[in-house]
Amino acid sequence: MRIVVDAFGGDNAPDEIVKGALAAAEEFGVDITLTGDKNLIQKSIEKQGLKTPDSLNIVHCTDVISMHDEPTSLLKAHAESSMAVAFCELTEGRADAFVSAGSTGAIVVGGTLLVKRIKGIKRPALGGLLPTPSGGKYLLMDMGANAECRPEMLAQFGLMASVYLEKVEGVKDPKIGLLNIGTEDTKGDPLRQETYRLMQELPIHFIGNVESREMPKGVCDAVITDGFTGNIALKLIEGTSMTLMKMIKEILYRSVFNKLAALVIKKDLYALKKLMDSSEVGGAPLLGVKQPVIKAHGSSDARAIRSAIGQAVRFAERNVIETISKNL
Amino acid sequence: MRIVVDAFGGDNAPDEIVKGALAAAEEFGVDITLTGDKNLIQKSIEKQGLKTPDSLNIVHCTDVISMHDEPTSLLKAHAESSMAVAFCELTEGRADAFVSAGSTGAIVVGGTLLVKRIKGIKRPALGGLLPTPSGGKYLLMDMGANAECRPEMLAQFGLMASVYLEKVEGVKDPKIGLLNIGTEDTKGDPLRQETYRLMQELPIHFIGNVESREMPKGVCDAVITDGFTGNIALKLIEGTSMTLMKMIKEILYRSVFNKLAALVIKKDLYALKKLMDSSEVGGAPLLGVKQPVIKAHGSSDARAIRSAIGQAVRFAERNVIETISKNL
Repeated sequence: MRIVVDAFGGDNAPDEIVKGALAAAEEFGVDITLTGDKNLIQKSIEKQGLKTPDSLNIVHCTDVISMHDEPTSLLKAHAESSMAVAFCELTEGRADAFVSAGSTGAIVVGGTLLVKRIKGIKRPALGGLLPTPSGGKYLLMDMGANAECRPEMLAQFGLMASVYLEKVEGVKDPKIGLLNIGTEDTKGDPLRQETYRLMQELPIHFIGNVESREMPKGVCDAVITDGFTGNIALKLIEGTSMTLMKMIKEILYRSVFNKLAALVIKKDLYALKKLMDSSEVGGAPLLGVKQPVIKAHGSSDARAIRSAIGQAVRFAERNVIETISKNL
Repeated sequence: MRIVVDAFGGDNAPDEIVKGALAAAEEFGVDITLTGDKNLIQKSIEKQGLKTPDSLNIVHCTDVISMHDEPTSLLKAHAESSMAVAFCELTEGRADAFVSAGSTGAIVVGGTLLVKRIKGIKRPALGGLLPTPSGGKYLLMDMGANAECRPEMLAQFGLMASVYLEKVEGVKDPKIGLLNIGTEDTKGDPLRQETYRLMQELPIHFIGNVESREMPKGVCDAVITDGFTGNIALKLIEGTSMTLMKMIKEILYRSVFNKLAALVIKKDLYALKKLMDSSEVGGAPLLGVKQPVIKAHGSSDARAIRSAIGQAVRFAERNVIETISKNL
C-alpha cells in the first residue's frame, strides 16, 4: 500500500509533514510518496536527521496552493502544485490514499472533480473529528463542503458517517444524530423534518435530533448537518473554547498567589487543553469520493500527520468506499 | 409608565419574579402589573417581607403555560394563563411594556399574533444578549423565532438590532455583522450573499461577514443570522462553556494540592463563570412587534428580572418602535 502525502500543505510544511510521513512509513509498514520541491524535502530529511526508507518516492514540483488561493485554482493556475500533483498520484493509480494539511476548499475541489463522486452519491462531504470531555471523539459532518443541502444529501452524509466510523474508527454500531433546534421530530426547518424521515429508513443507528447544547458532551458518534451550520458550529466550538481558556490563563497570571496556584494545576490544565485540541483526534475524511482522501488539520505537527496517515491506511484497507456504495 | 410582568413564567416563579418586579418598581419609578394567582402572589410578597407599592396591580388568573405546552396553546387552551393575560394587559393599553421569563415559543406566538407586527416588518425576531470576555455584550439575532429566513428578513433584523442597541443599550453607532462561513462577500449560501448586498444599503454600520470563531470575542455589537443557525449557535456556546467549566472543576478536585490551588483562584473563577453567564447580561427583546416585549431568561433570579424590567422601561421610553418603523 502506498499513501501520497502533500509535503507542502499546512502551517508546518514541509518539516513536520516529512517527519510525520516517514514515521508513519515505519509504524504502519506502508510506502510513502511525498509531493513538492525535491530539494527542500531532501534538505528537510537531512536537517532533521531522518531515516529514508528505500520505498520513499518524491514527486517533484515547486508550486504550492495556499489558503488564500481560490480553491478552484487547483485545477488550472495551481495544477502543478504539491496538492494537485498528489491528487494526480492518487487518481492515476500510483497511490491508494491521499493526505494533505493544505487548503480545505482545494481538497474538496480536488476530491469532487479529480477523484470524483461514488456513483449515486449526490455530494461529497467533509467529516471533522472533534474531542469529547471523556477523551473520546465524534464526527461532525458536513464541516463545510456544501453550504446548501437537500434532505437526500444529509441522509447520505449519515450513511457515510456510519460506515466510516465503524470501519475506520472502530466504533461498533455508531449512533448517528441530526443537529436540530429541538429533539421532537417536528422541530426545525423543512430540511431537518424531511431528513429526519429519510434517516429513519436508513440501515444506520439513527438516534434522532440532537441539540447543539448536547453536542460537546459526545452524546452520539456522528452529528449530521449541512455544511453552513457545520462550519459555524466547528468554529464556534473553537472560538468559545479559546476565549474561555484565554480568560482562565489571565486569571492564573493575575496575582502572585494565583501564579503559585497555577504552578500546581498547570500540568492538568495543559492536559485538558491537549484533550480539547481537535488536531489531536485525527484528520477529516472527505466521504463520497471514489478513493480515500484525508484532510489533516492546517496546524498539524508530525504526530498529527502520522496519525492522519494511519487513518488513510485504515480507510484504504477496510472497504469503506465499497460498503458505502453497496448501502446506497 | 406601567410594565406588566408574567409572575408565573420561568424556573423561579413566582418568588424571584415578584421580588424582582417590586425592586424594579422602586428603582425605575414605574408602576407594575403582575399576572397570575393573586393568592400565591400575595403570599410570596408576605413570605419575602416585601414592601408593596400602592400602584401595584395584580390581575388574577390561575392557569400557567409551561415549556412543555405547544406555544400556540397560548391562544386557546392557555388563553387564561398568566402569560396570555399579561399580553392582554399590553395589547389593551393597560401596560406600556411586557416582561416574561416563560416559554420562548409562547412569547414569540403572543408577540406575533396578539401584539402584532409593525407595518412593513416581515417577521419579528428574538435578539439574545451574550457576554464578551471584556465584560461587554453583543446581540445575537434571530435566536430562534424564525427557523427559515429570506434575505429581506435578515436585513430587517440588522436594522432592528441597530436601533435597539443604540436606543436601549446605549451603544453608539452599533457595529452590525452577518454570521457567515468566511469573510469575503461571496462566501456562504445564496441567503447570506443576497443579505450581504441588502445590508450594505441600509442606514446601519454594517461591518460585513463575521465568522463564528470571532463571535465570542465580541468583534461586533450585533451578529445577524437566521433563527436555525442562531439557536444552534446560542446553545453551542452554552454547551461548550459548560463542558469546559465542568472539566476545569474536575481538575480542581483531583488531588489535595489541586484543591489547595483551587481555594486560591476560586473567587476569580466564580467571577469568570458569572461574567460568562448570559442571564447576567439581560433579557431578549422581541423586535418587530408593535409594543415592547422582553423575554427574560428562564433561570432568571430577582436581579435578572429587575434588570429585564429596566430594559423594558428604556424600550418603551425611547421610541424604539417608531424609529424602526420610520427607517423601514
